[in-house]
Amino acid sequence: MKVAHKIWLDNNGKAFGEGPYELLKRVEKTNSLHQAAMEMKMSYSKAWKLIQTMEKRLGFVLLDKKIGGSSGGGSRVTPKGKDLMKRYGRLEKDAKEAIDRIYRKQFGNR
Amino acid sequence: MKVAHKIWLDNNGKAFGEGPYELLKRVEKTNSLHQAAMEMKMSYSKAWKLIQTMEKRLGFVLLDKKIGGSSGGGSRVTPKGKDLMKRYGRLEKDAKEAIDRIYRKQFGNR
Repeated sequence: MKVAHKIWLDNNGKAFGEGPYELLKRVEKTNSLHQAAMEMKMSYSKAWKLIQTMEKRLGFVLLDKKIGGSSGGGSRVTPKGKDLMKRYGRLEKDAKEAIDRIYRKQFGNR
Repeated sequence: MKVAHKIWLDNNGKAFGEGPYELLKRVEKTNSLHQAAMEMKMSYSKAWKLIQTMEKRLGFVLLDKKIGGSSGGGSRVTPKGKDLMKRYGRLEKDAKEAIDRIYRKQFGNR
Protein backbone atom coordinates (compact mmCIF):
# COMPACT_ATOMS: atom_id res chain seq x y z
CA MET A 1 0.00 0.00 0.00
CA LYS A 2 1.18 3.52 -0.70
CA VAL A 3 -0.22 7.04 -0.79
CA ALA A 4 -0.68 8.96 -4.04
CA HIS A 5 -1.69 12.53 -4.72
CA LYS A 6 -2.24 15.26 -7.25
CA ILE A 7 -1.91 18.98 -6.64
CA TRP A 8 -2.98 21.72 -8.99
CA LEU A 9 -3.76 25.41 -9.09
CA ASP A 10 -7.36 26.29 -9.79
CA ASN A 11 -8.96 29.44 -11.10
CA ASN A 12 -12.42 28.51 -12.40
CA GLY A 13 -10.85 25.27 -13.65
CA LYS A 14 -7.35 23.77 -13.67
CA ALA A 15 -4.87 26.63 -14.08
CA PHE A 16 -1.59 24.72 -13.59
CA GLY A 17 -0.47 21.27 -12.53
CA GLU A 18 1.90 18.38 -13.09
CA GLY A 19 1.19 18.01 -16.84
CA PRO A 20 1.79 21.67 -17.80
CA TYR A 21 4.80 21.74 -15.44
CA GLU A 22 6.41 18.76 -17.22
CA LEU A 23 5.60 20.31 -20.58
CA LEU A 24 7.21 23.66 -19.67
CA LYS A 25 10.30 21.92 -18.27
CA ARG A 26 10.77 20.30 -21.69
CA VAL A 27 10.19 23.61 -23.50
CA GLU A 28 12.91 25.15 -21.29
CA LYS A 29 15.34 22.44 -22.38
CA THR A 30 14.43 22.33 -26.07
CA ASN A 31 13.03 25.84 -26.76
CA SER A 32 10.38 24.05 -28.79
CA LEU A 33 6.77 23.27 -27.92
CA HIS A 34 6.75 20.79 -30.83
CA GLN A 35 9.67 18.89 -29.35
CA ALA A 36 8.28 19.10 -25.78
CA ALA A 37 4.89 17.77 -26.87
CA MET A 38 6.53 14.93 -28.81
CA GLU A 39 8.59 13.91 -25.78
CA MET A 40 5.36 13.67 -23.77
CA LYS A 41 3.62 11.72 -26.56
CA MET A 42 1.10 14.55 -26.80
CA SER A 43 -0.13 16.01 -30.06
CA TYR A 44 1.10 19.53 -30.81
CA SER A 45 -2.48 20.80 -31.01
CA LYS A 46 -3.28 19.35 -27.58
CA ALA A 47 -0.15 20.91 -26.07
CA TRP A 48 -0.97 24.24 -27.70
CA LYS A 49 -4.55 24.19 -26.40
CA LEU A 50 -3.32 23.23 -22.92
CA ILE A 51 -0.95 26.23 -22.83
CA GLN A 52 -3.72 28.54 -24.09
CA THR A 53 -6.13 27.33 -21.41
CA MET A 54 -3.53 27.69 -18.62
CA GLU A 55 -2.57 31.19 -19.80
CA LYS A 56 -6.19 32.27 -19.81
CA ARG A 57 -6.82 30.95 -16.29
CA LEU A 58 -3.52 32.22 -14.90
CA GLY A 59 -3.95 35.64 -16.48
CA PHE A 60 -0.44 35.79 -17.93
CA VAL A 61 1.58 34.43 -20.83
CA LEU A 62 3.66 31.27 -20.32
CA LEU A 63 5.36 31.04 -23.72
CA ASP A 64 6.90 33.57 -26.10
CA LYS A 65 6.43 32.10 -29.55
CA LYS A 66 8.70 32.94 -32.44
CA ILE A 67 7.17 31.99 -35.74
CA GLY A 68 9.26 31.14 -38.80
CA GLY A 69 12.85 32.32 -39.27
CA SER A 70 15.78 30.22 -40.41
CA SER A 71 15.49 27.94 -37.36
CA GLY A 72 11.80 27.30 -38.02
CA GLY A 73 10.56 29.28 -35.00
CA GLY A 74 10.55 28.16 -31.38
CA SER A 75 9.07 28.80 -27.95
CA ARG A 76 10.62 30.21 -24.81
CA VAL A 77 9.20 30.16 -21.32
CA THR A 78 8.49 33.73 -20.17
CA PRO A 79 10.00 35.08 -16.92
CA LYS A 80 6.53 34.85 -15.30
CA GLY A 81 6.30 31.27 -16.54
CA LYS A 82 9.69 30.45 -15.02
CA ASP A 83 8.69 32.04 -11.72
CA LEU A 84 5.50 29.95 -11.67
CA MET A 85 7.48 26.77 -12.43
CA LYS A 86 9.84 27.48 -9.54
CA ARG A 87 7.00 28.05 -7.09
CA TYR A 88 4.95 25.09 -8.30
CA GLY A 89 8.03 22.84 -8.17
CA ARG A 90 8.59 23.78 -4.53
CA LEU A 91 4.88 23.39 -3.70
CA GLU A 92 4.86 19.90 -5.21
CA LYS A 93 8.12 18.84 -3.50
CA ASP A 94 7.16 20.15 -0.05
CA ALA A 95 3.62 18.78 -0.33
CA LYS A 96 4.90 15.33 -1.30
CA GLU A 97 7.19 15.29 1.74
CA ALA A 98 4.36 16.42 4.03
CA ILE A 99 1.89 13.87 2.64
CA ASP A 100 4.41 11.02 2.95
CA ARG A 101 5.07 12.01 6.56
CA ILE A 102 1.35 12.24 7.42
CA TYR A 103 0.67 8.92 5.68
CA ARG A 104 3.36 7.16 7.72
CA LYS A 105 1.91 8.68 10.89
CA GLN A 106 -1.61 7.40 10.13
CA PHE A 107 -0.85 4.14 8.37
CA GLY A 108 2.66 3.12 9.52
CA ASN A 109 4.00 0.24 7.44
CA ARG A 110 0.68 -1.22 6.33
CA MET B 1 -6.37 31.45 -7.53
CA LYS B 2 -6.43 28.58 -5.09
CA VAL B 3 -4.77 25.22 -4.59
CA ALA B 4 -6.63 21.93 -5.06
CA HIS B 5 -5.61 18.35 -4.38
CA LYS B 6 -6.60 14.72 -4.34
CA ILE B 7 -5.15 12.06 -2.07
CA TRP B 8 -5.75 8.35 -2.37
CA LEU B 9 -4.35 5.02 -1.26
CA ASP B 10 -2.91 2.87 -4.02
CA ASN B 11 -2.28 -0.84 -4.21
CA ASN B 12 -1.96 -1.72 -7.90
CA GLY B 13 -4.72 0.82 -8.56
CA LYS B 14 -6.87 3.10 -6.42
CA ALA B 15 -7.56 1.30 -3.14
CA PHE B 16 -9.32 4.11 -1.21
CA GLY B 17 -10.01 7.79 -1.62
CA GLU B 18 -12.48 10.62 -1.24
CA GLY B 19 -15.34 8.91 -3.14
CA PRO B 20 -15.34 5.63 -1.19
CA TYR B 21 -14.82 7.62 2.05
CA GLU B 22 -17.95 9.69 1.36
CA LEU B 23 -19.88 6.57 0.41
CA LEU B 24 -18.90 4.73 3.62
CA LYS B 25 -19.77 7.77 5.75
CA ARG B 26 -23.27 7.63 4.29
CA VAL B 27 -23.50 3.87 4.86
CA GLU B 28 -22.54 4.46 8.52
CA LYS B 29 -25.43 6.92 8.85
CA THR B 30 -28.04 4.97 6.93
CA ASN B 31 -26.89 1.31 7.24
CA SER B 32 -27.81 1.02 3.58
CA LEU B 33 -25.59 0.98 0.52
CA HIS B 34 -28.71 1.64 -1.59
CA GLN B 35 -29.46 4.81 0.35
CA ALA B 36 -25.80 5.90 0.42
CA ALA B 37 -25.44 5.45 -3.35
CA MET B 38 -28.68 7.36 -3.97
CA GLU B 39 -27.48 10.27 -1.80
CA MET B 40 -24.35 10.46 -3.96
CA LYS B 41 -26.37 10.22 -7.19
CA MET B 42 -24.51 7.01 -7.98
CA SER B 43 -26.17 3.87 -9.31
CA TYR B 44 -26.33 0.98 -6.84
CA SER B 45 -24.37 -1.25 -9.22
CA LYS B 46 -21.60 1.32 -9.51
CA ALA B 47 -21.41 1.72 -5.72
CA TRP B 48 -21.35 -2.06 -5.29
CA LYS B 49 -18.56 -2.47 -7.85
CA LEU B 50 -16.59 0.35 -6.22
CA ILE B 51 -16.77 -1.36 -2.83
CA GLN B 52 -15.79 -4.71 -4.37
CA THR B 53 -12.76 -3.17 -6.09
CA MET B 54 -11.64 -1.33 -2.93
CA GLU B 55 -12.02 -4.50 -0.82
CA LYS B 56 -9.93 -6.50 -3.27
CA ARG B 57 -7.14 -3.92 -3.35
CA LEU B 58 -7.22 -3.29 0.41
CA GLY B 59 -7.28 -7.01 1.21
CA PHE B 60 -10.16 -6.76 3.71
CA VAL B 61 -13.91 -6.39 3.83
CA LEU B 62 -15.45 -2.91 4.17
CA LEU B 63 -19.13 -3.84 4.39
CA ASP B 64 -21.08 -6.60 6.14
CA LYS B 65 -24.12 -7.19 3.97
CA LYS B 66 -27.35 -8.55 5.34
CA ILE B 67 -29.63 -9.81 2.62
CA GLY B 68 -33.40 -9.93 2.98
CA GLY B 69 -35.19 -10.08 6.34
CA SER B 70 -38.16 -8.00 7.41
CA SER B 71 -36.16 -4.77 7.05
CA GLY B 72 -35.13 -5.65 3.50
CA GLY B 73 -31.47 -6.20 4.37
CA GLY B 74 -28.80 -3.57 4.90
CA SER B 75 -25.08 -2.90 5.07
CA ARG B 76 -22.82 -2.09 7.98
CA VAL B 77 -19.27 -0.80 7.87
CA THR B 78 -16.93 -3.42 9.36
CA PRO B 79 -14.57 -2.54 12.26
CA LYS B 80 -11.63 -2.62 9.80
CA GLY B 81 -13.60 -0.34 7.50
CA LYS B 82 -14.25 2.10 10.36
CA ASP B 83 -10.57 2.06 11.32
CA LEU B 84 -9.61 2.84 7.72
CA MET B 85 -12.13 5.70 7.59
CA LYS B 86 -10.69 7.19 10.76
CA ARG B 87 -7.12 7.04 9.46
CA TYR B 88 -8.02 8.29 5.98
CA GLY B 89 -10.08 11.12 7.45
CA ARG B 90 -7.08 12.28 9.51
CA LEU B 91 -4.72 11.87 6.53
CA GLU B 92 -6.97 14.02 4.37
CA LYS B 93 -7.47 16.69 7.07
CA ASP B 94 -3.77 16.98 7.97
CA ALA B 95 -2.71 16.89 4.31
CA LYS B 96 -5.17 19.68 3.44
CA GLU B 97 -3.78 21.85 6.23
CA ALA B 98 -0.19 21.17 5.16
CA ILE B 99 -0.91 21.86 1.47
CA ASP B 100 -2.73 25.12 2.29
CA ARG B 101 0.21 26.24 4.41
CA ILE B 102 2.79 25.33 1.73
CA TYR B 103 0.69 27.03 -0.95
CA ARG B 104 0.53 30.27 1.04
CA LYS B 105 4.30 30.10 1.56
CA GLN B 106 4.99 29.74 -2.18
CA PHE B 107 2.19 31.82 -3.65
CA GLY B 108 1.12 34.24 -0.92
CA ASN B 109 -2.08 36.03 -1.85
CA ARG B 110 -1.84 35.69 -5.62
